[in-house]
Amino acid sequence: MISKINLGNFFEDFKIGQKIIHPLPRTISDGDVSLYIAFTGSRFALHSSDVVAHQMGYEKRPIDDILMFHLTFGKSVQDISLNAIANLGYAEISFPNPVYVGDTVSMISEVIGLKENSNGKSGVVYVHSIGVNQNNQEVLNFKRWVMVHKKDLLILSGINEVPTFQNSTVIEENINIPTIKSVDTNLSGGKYFFEDYVKGERLNHPEGITIDNSDHTLATKLYQNNAKVHFNDHMMKATPMKERLIYGGIIISMARTLSFNGLANAQWVYAINSGSHCNPTYAGDTIYAYSEVLETINHKREDIGLLRLRTIALKNQTADEVENCKGEDGKYLPNVVLDLDYTVVVPKKITTSCN
Amino acid sequence: MISKINLGNFFEDFKIGQKIIHPLPRTISDGDVSLYIAFTGSRFALHSSDVVAHQMGYEKRPIDDILMFHLTFGKSVQDISLNAIANLGYAEISFPNPVYVGDTVSMISEVIGLKENSNGKSGVVYVHSIGVNQNNQEVLNFKRWVMVHKKDLLILSGINEVPTFQNSTVIEENINIPTIKSVDTNLSGGKYFFEDYVKGERLNHPEGITIDNSDHTLATKLYQNNAKVHFNDHMMKATPMKERLIYGGIIISMARTLSFNGLANAQWVYAINSGSHCNPTYAGDTIYAYSEVLETINHKREDIGLLRLRTIALKNQTADEVENCKGEDGKYLPNVVLDLDYTVVVPKKITTSCN
Amino acid sequence: MISKINLGNFFEDFKIGQKIIHPLPRTISDGDVSLYIAFTGSRFALHSSDVVAHQMGYEKRPIDDILMFHLTFGKSVQDISLNAIANLGYAEISFPNPVYVGDTVSMISEVIGLKENSNGKSGVVYVHSIGVNQNNQEVLNFKRWVMVHKKDLLILSGINEVPTFQNSTVIEENINIPTIKSVDTNLSGGKYFFEDYVKGERLNHPEGITIDNSDHTLATKLYQNNAKVHFNDHMMKATPMKERLIYGGIIISMARTLSFNGLANAQWVYAINSGSHCNPTYAGDTIYAYSEVLETINHKREDIGLLRLRTIALKNQTADEVENCKGEDGKYLPNVVLDLDYTVVVPKKITTSCN
Repeated sequence: MISKINLGNFFEDFKIGQKIIHPLPRTISDGDVSLYIAFTGSRFALHSSDVVAHQMGYEKRPIDDILMFHLTFGKSVQDISLNAIANLGYAEISFPNPVYVGDTVSMISEVIGLKENSNGKSGVVYVHSIGVNQNNQEVLNFKRWVMVHKKDLLILSGINEVPTFQNSTVIEENINIPTIKSVDTNLSGGKYFFEDYVKGERLNHPEGITIDNSDHTLATKLYQNNAKVHFNDHMMKATPMKERLIYGGIIISMARTLSFNGLANAQWVYAINSGSHCNPTYAGDTIYAYSEVLETINHKREDIGLLRLRTIALKNQTADEVENCKGEDGKYLPNVVLDLDYTVVVPKKITTSCN
Repeated sequence: MISKINLGNFFEDFKIGQKIIHPLPRTISDGDVSLYIAFTGSRFALHSSDVVAHQMGYEKRPIDDILMFHLTFGKSVQDISLNAIANLGYAEISFPNPVYVGDTVSMISEVIGLKENSNGKSGVVYVHSIGVNQNNQEVLNFKRWVMVHKKDLLILSGINEVPTFQNSTVIEENINIPTIKSVDTNLSGGKYFFEDYVKGERLNHPEGITIDNSDHTLATKLYQNNAKVHFNDHMMKATPMKERLIYGGIIISMARTLSFNGLANAQWVYAINSGSHCNPTYAGDTIYAYSEVLETINHKREDIGLLRLRTIALKNQTADEVENCKGEDGKYLPNVVLDLDYTVVVPKKITTSCN
Repeated sequence: MISKINLGNFFEDFKIGQKIIHPLPRTISDGDVSLYIAFTGSRFALHSSDVVAHQMGYEKRPIDDILMFHLTFGKSVQDISLNAIANLGYAEISFPNPVYVGDTVSMISEVIGLKENSNGKSGVVYVHSIGVNQNNQEVLNFKRWVMVHKKDLLILSGINEVPTFQNSTVIEENINIPTIKSVDTNLSGGKYFFEDYVKGERLNHPEGITIDNSDHTLATKLYQNNAKVHFNDHMMKATPMKERLIYGGIIISMARTLSFNGLANAQWVYAINSGSHCNPTYAGDTIYAYSEVLETINHKREDIGLLRLRTIALKNQTADEVENCKGEDGKYLPNVVLDLDYTVVVPKKITTSCN
């Protein structure tokens, strides 16, 4: 009898052009939203207040982009990265449409690249994943690549088809955000607008948040991300890590949350251009972050502009203590845990008539 | 003045035929559902996706049977088992009707048996409990027996009225599940149907989940189960256990969650025939599980069949490592923490027209 | 360039009469309610059951007063107490109108007193804070005072304007609670009514609840209370405390939850007259509580009366073990962590026609 146990896909199971429908569409609820605030302490007003959402032209508060990413991304772990050795990178992540409580998200991936490693033991799988809501509207679009174990070490395929990625997610002519008529800074908690930020500016976010085992495992289970390294302490004790590894997405959430202090009006993540989990994090680590403004991007819309940011997350070290996230050898310092290049939307001053 | 403090019932407080209305009806919300996913990582599609629920003939996703059990069962702890020495057993648990977000569940119990222990210090109380929703429809029905302290050790009653239990919950002619017109295996995450399972088959579920103090106490508090052993570390430090004991229901939830890998289309728990918490679990334990198909049960309905399963939960040992859950002496091995005999509903292949 | 980082207000930043609109209005959801039950294990029926809420004249279950307090109060931390050395006291807290799921709460504070400390390093700021819902109805009203750092130690203002507080919150002629037609004690879990309580009576609540790091930080993050001492273990390790301090509001919630056993029908907190966090609590502490009836207060309404209570919360010591919360020197004993003087509403017996 064929085993009914799903052990995930290995390198040989993937073919260029293959489409994988990820099971387990997820209906997003108020419970998910509250838990996300509990996990992160996030204070972006658009996502925690219907009153603010109304002022910004929404019927009700949309789901935080990063929460939506986790809930949608989680679906793909079983098929793509259950046997991953490493999540190597992300590119061209975009959030084309808002998602609301009650929406159901699901995802489909296409294999766009395969590269066998020269050691014959593993290979890199490149996928293009598209998340949709229940009306088949695109809500998430991204590419990622993971190093995956091979089943059979002896059979060499020699495959080496590596796709190219754009340096940053394309910014569309139409940005699916309502026209911002006013931003009440007394409600949003932020006094600064698009015009206030300059290229090269650095923001040292002062807060730090410690992560414990219960809260990071609760979050990753909520996202139905079933990568074993995050949950199974018994298994991890037998590895060099000795303990459960924190899901990298949690660090992205923490970095975004910490960036509130300095970027309170940057309520939308428009895109993630690239991201790297530079070092692992474990329970007990305290996460800090700083952000650099890489670029200020004007858009044809008069009410908003975009900032391309680089947010660096640190463990157990404050932003004030770190001048450069890389050492003289060009390698990330050991306390650097995330290097995130992303683009946010910030309202322009002209719109703030009410304050 | 009479003390207003409720110290729970002792053996002498129970009478055969006595009916106990358990206070604190509970309205089930989206928050409870999200928290259950966060506690367990459960991935059964019917309970996490409205889209899947619609396809299966439901208006919206019903509450996971085991979550409903905890929320309803929790009500009875104050009256039945606050002074319990041990939860001895369960029998004939059934889930006659689905429960949805917004429903309010409550429970009533009847004392159906009493047996004083020969040591005069305690006795066994047998109750039949019925949970209903706000429209008085039965949503849970079960029998359980607990060993309870006596108040007065000197007064011997000699009572010995032990009810008999059926070996398994009766399977009704009418099963309150919509006619399954199609199961999209791309959504449910499972390729196997009723006809694929054979008696005697064993499924070694590969995942393991570690439980920490915060998450098991959050869950048990959510269920408003106020048995002190689960929450009060100060009290437990003075006992031979030295620490908080994890509520046995949490192990049932974990075993069910782990069984997803191999039983993804077994979306309904029809009944729990019997259950035994073989050994205690504590924070830091990692739970694994394997399942044996005890029986494949045909039903007059053409769209579904039932599987009688035995799921064994283990602590800190993988399913592959355990051939038999009992030693040569017939006793459970020390790492076996749950022996659950239950019946699930699985769609038949004939219904899967769409895939 | 002016720093965009908000480091909170210092003593010199406050002026008598200054009004501060606290940003981040919060829409309260079912997720918040479930999380509150998970954090506390609270069993007050009015807040967990729509059926009970209907019986008591509500359309649906109102939000627990203490949860609402945390969600509203959390808004003011950024502006008032981010640089607090100590939260010195509360007075005249009232809950004028019920709050429901879907409501959005926000808060405004007025500075009503300022007193520079003689050491020149800090001062006490007194504020009067008013929380409203989305219809601008008052839902919370209180005064508090905090000791705050000065920015400039050399410039002495000599300001010394200290407001006076009433010994207890005024009890209004109109209490915004529906006329209680019946209390079904089988549902509420409590047999005792207003007439059953007498001045001087003491209730030793028997349960104890242990708090862990994940659950107290999840709660405080849910409340969007960003006081660093609660989240940042890395920072706290460098202080004499050596670890994260539990937010005092969590102890208020625990004390209230524990008081259920003895005060199950006291479903409404009408007011908090004063409160003192006598000693700090840390992860691993087990909270116990006892309550004293300070006063039984008749009201013109025939269906309800009020009890003025003093609930003392203890850490790692049962209520039975503590006769007096203060030593012979008049100081709080080291295990006393909360001294709360508050007023609850309890239905009168006359209304319990149905049971």
